[in-house]
Amino acid sequence: MAARTVDMNCDLGESFGAYRIGMDAEIMPYITSANIACGFHAGDPAVMRATVRLALRHGVGIGAHPGLQDLAGFGRRAMRIAAQEAYELTLYQIGALWAFVKSEGGVLRHVKPHGALYNMAAADAAIAEGIAEAVYRMDPELMLFGLAGSELTRAAERLGLRAVNEVFADRRYEADGSLTPRRLAEAVIHDAEEACEQAVRMATGCSVVTRQGTVLDVQADTICIHGDTPGALGYATKLRAALESAGIGIAMAGGGGC
Amino acid sequence: MAARTVDMNCDLGESFGAYRIGMDAEIMPYITSANIACGFHAGDPAVMRATVRLALRHGVGIGAHPGLQDLAGFGRRAMRIAAQEAYELTLYQIGALWAFVKSEGGVLRHVKPHGALYNMAAADAAIAEGIAEAVYRMDPELMLFGLAGSELTRAAERLGLRAVNEVFADRRYEADGSLTPRRLAEAVIHDAEEACEQAVRMATGCSVVTRQGTVLDVQADTICIHGDTPGALGYATKLRAALESAGIGIAMAGGGGC
Amino acid sequence: MAARTVDMNCDLGESFGAYRIGMDAEIMPYITSANIACGFHAGDPAVMRATVRLALRHGVGIGAHPGLQDLAGFGRRAMRIAAQEAYELTLYQIGALWAFVKSEGGVLRHVKPHGALYNMAAADAAIAEGIAEAVYRMDPELMLFGLAGSELTRAAERLGLRAVNEVFADRRYEADGSLTPRRLAEAVIHDAEEACEQAVRMATGCSVVTRQGTVLDVQADTICIHGDTPGALGYATKLRAALESAGIGIAMAGGGGC
Amino acid sequence: MAARTVDMNCDLGESFGAYRIGMDAEIMPYITSANIACGFHAGDPAVMRATVRLALRHGVGIGAHPGLQDLAGFGRRAMRIAAQEAYELTLYQIGALWAFVKSEGGVLRHVKPHGALYNMAAADAAIAEGIAEAVYRMDPELMLFGLAGSELTRAAERLGLRAVNEVFADRRYEADGSLTPRRLAEAVIHDAEEACEQAVRMATGCSVVTRQGTVLDVQADTICIHGDTPGALGYATKLRAALESAGIGIAMAGGGGC
Repeated sequence: MAARTVDMNCDLGESFGAYRIGMDAEIMPYITSANIACGFHAGDPAVMRATVRLALRHGVGIGAHPGLQDLAGFGRRAMRIAAQEAYELTLYQIGALWAFVKSEGGVLRHVKPHGALYNMAAADAAIAEGIAEAVYRMDPELMLFGLAGSELTRAAERLGLRAVNEVFADRRYEADGSLTPRRLAEAVIHDAEEACEQAVRMATGCSVVTRQGTVLDVQADTICIHGDTPGALGYATKLRAALESAGIGIAMAGGGGC
Repeated sequence: MAARTVDMNCDLGESFGAYRIGMDAEIMPYITSANIACGFHAGDPAVMRATVRLALRHGVGIGAHPGLQDLAGFGRRAMRIAAQEAYELTLYQIGALWAFVKSEGGVLRHVKPHGALYNMAAADAAIAEGIAEAVYRMDPELMLFGLAGSELTRAAERLGLRAVNEVFADRRYEADGSLTPRRLAEAVIHDAEEACEQAVRMATGCSVVTRQGTVLDVQADTICIHGDTPGALGYATKLRAALESAGIGIAMAGGGGC
Repeated sequence: MAARTVDMNCDLGESFGAYRIGMDAEIMPYITSANIACGFHAGDPAVMRATVRLALRHGVGIGAHPGLQDLAGFGRRAMRIAAQEAYELTLYQIGALWAFVKSEGGVLRHVKPHGALYNMAAADAAIAEGIAEAVYRMDPELMLFGLAGSELTRAAERLGLRAVNEVFADRRYEADGSLTPRRLAEAVIHDAEEACEQAVRMATGCSVVTRQGTVLDVQADTICIHGDTPGALGYATKLRAALESAGIGIAMAGGGGC
Repeated sequence: MAARTVDMNCDLGESFGAYRIGMDAEIMPYITSANIACGFHAGDPAVMRATVRLALRHGVGIGAHPGLQDLAGFGRRAMRIAAQEAYELTLYQIGALWAFVKSEGGVLRHVKPHGALYNMAAADAAIAEGIAEAVYRMDPELMLFGLAGSELTRAAERLGLRAVNEVFADRRYEADGSLTPRRLAEAVIHDAEEACEQAVRMATGCSVVTRQGTVLDVQADTICIHGDTPGALGYATKLRAALESAGIGIAMAGGGGC
């Protein structure tokens, strides 16, 4: 029987011009998939090139991380766009990153929308379809990362794309499968032990205990790691250890699954 | 013996958001190669998609038209950038357009830098090399359009790229092969007959009479047509007729040559 | 008894760089207040200067027309921003226009938010308050233009600002005072006669018949004219004539009122 | 006899959106004038407001720090612009900052161009005049900071503006009064003692020994402190101490002078 594995992904390449953000070089050894910003919400051509090269040196899977065209808001402000606009801005950004991956001899493996676009795609079927269509028409072999059990992963599957269900070890879940809004006190799990436990349960038991106390089925293909917080490296180390102790391998998305 | 042919190219897809510029649909039947803006100096994802589709419907060769990141100045203001920056911004923009071409079932055939970047690349070997390198690393089969006999076409040839020498029927040339600066009265040839004569001489005799009265050898692989002036369609019609009367076929770059 | 008057305003200065939009010079003689874009959703420093000069030559009241930072979407895409952000972006843009007005020897008289920001401010009391606060802290003598009877005019009045109630002659109203959404067929009144009748009724009777058939009280301090449609000048002419026939003077905001 | 004083200025407010740069709060106690970025090369409305408030709390003189419209290049890439464009972009940015200063109850005291715009204005009389004209037309009481003895301070003086001559303690000078280009090894004075000596000589003797060994007259009205380097605070402390030991007071620009 094949060993159960999970991918660990992180948003990277979010510096811009003279501005530095994140600890890309430090976090790279801990992850298996890198979501690289494409210049709309963060990142620029120089940063994209450098981050692609860094990922290739570490053998980390490379994904495009398209966002809304809102550098001032870091792509975190929801914007009312049409599904057609979601299609177009996703395609543009995938292409831009594709060029850097191709020119460095690598292969683009996945796409994960950023911030507000990610959240909009999780809840809005039309936006989700626009994004999935862009990924599919660029290359049907690309994987699409989205919130586990969301409109985005459903849209991916309808098109025949490989959907990769993303879970958050350090975020609380609602009974309906959405993440607990950040305005609520319980939204973030600050205790690393508790986050690790949640990760292990998601990866082994394919479920999570919600804020309401119900048990929610959740498919954990990839776990999101944040790379821009002071404790990121320590947390990543603990998380990997906890998963490996539970018999879960850490491997680039493309193998395994609940 | 193969008939002599010349390509006719035009800059297109330069609208942006709510802003319309150019007569893309009207000019398309007259040209064989379209240089499509990529979002830095002009164009946006929606415009890029629409322009690619339009070019495909007309069987016109599709090229990326990367520019400096200066929407406010339409990419016409020279900017001091490093060769590395030229490489990165060119690669980014080629990739973005590539995605729209690929997703619509077409093939990207060429790259032509825009405005100030075009002029910088004509005169500055390092900038030229940055651009040529980006084209080559994206795809060595891509053609690179540049001012005939400039640093850019030389850089392309050094890398083994197919350089396409561009000439201007309605611009005066200096004895050194550069275009007469626009601040001089003779810079633009306003008389359509005279422009057509110059085009024919360049296409058949591979030479042009310069402002200084000397005869300059010039290789005319493609002629640039401007698509945003009131008389553009009439001029394009006359130019095609003049070339065809002289036994010059109009054909997409990739065949013929002096 | 003072004659009843109404202001006529138009959004202007929405060109950007090489891109032209609107018929600013043509529409200027028909209006009494100009809302000048400030560079976020449209406009740039050169256009702002030229438009301020044009308005001064015509003796038209000058207002700042701040929008969301979304040039690609022309400020028409709603964006989730905090009240604090509304305050800051409004203040920034008022200041920028203020400089052009001051340097040309004029006086800034009013502020009218643009597009999505206008609509957000009409319905959201916190956004409205952010905008009104910015206007007040820049200069409490500035007038604030907003949808008649909306959160924005209420916020202005709470602060002691002079609120100018804007009405639309060619838009249908809902029973609750909002504009009929554009997705409904009845949203726009295409017949110029009917639009003129509605304008006269609003200016003289201070009421409008809603889509539901009810009669809504509405204060018409200023009427919005669109300056970027082919029939704009003809419509403006008819509208002025109809109002004047009904004994309504056309005068810059700052006098009159229901 | 009035004591000799010198101003100490620093570029601040250069963060943008999610991106932090500089140590604004830490450096503020050491300086007497703050040059606050205005959103073109760095800064955004929220950062501008926060920085203005910070400067007011410390009683530091507030200046606008306009730059080229090049966020990607942090305003450091020279761009070919017309004098008219220099006028317009300077005026726009002064106005934007003016709004934040006015709304917080402060007074805008000076303007200092940033990066490439500063260098262009030092050497190009037309650009210098465009900037000076913008400052003058905004408010003739504003001071204009420029490289000591440059085209910019000359343009200011021709208009009747108060020119504030800026010197650099840690940069080497050429015999012609320009700064030694950064590509040369001697461009930056890394030794803090030597920089302090140069500052004292400039402030007391109104001269500097150039790279060529000549003695150059230089008027030191204000000394530039960099706030974004690790040793900035230590260097600022030493510099103040050295100046005070030499009997030079540190005081906001507007008093003193060689």
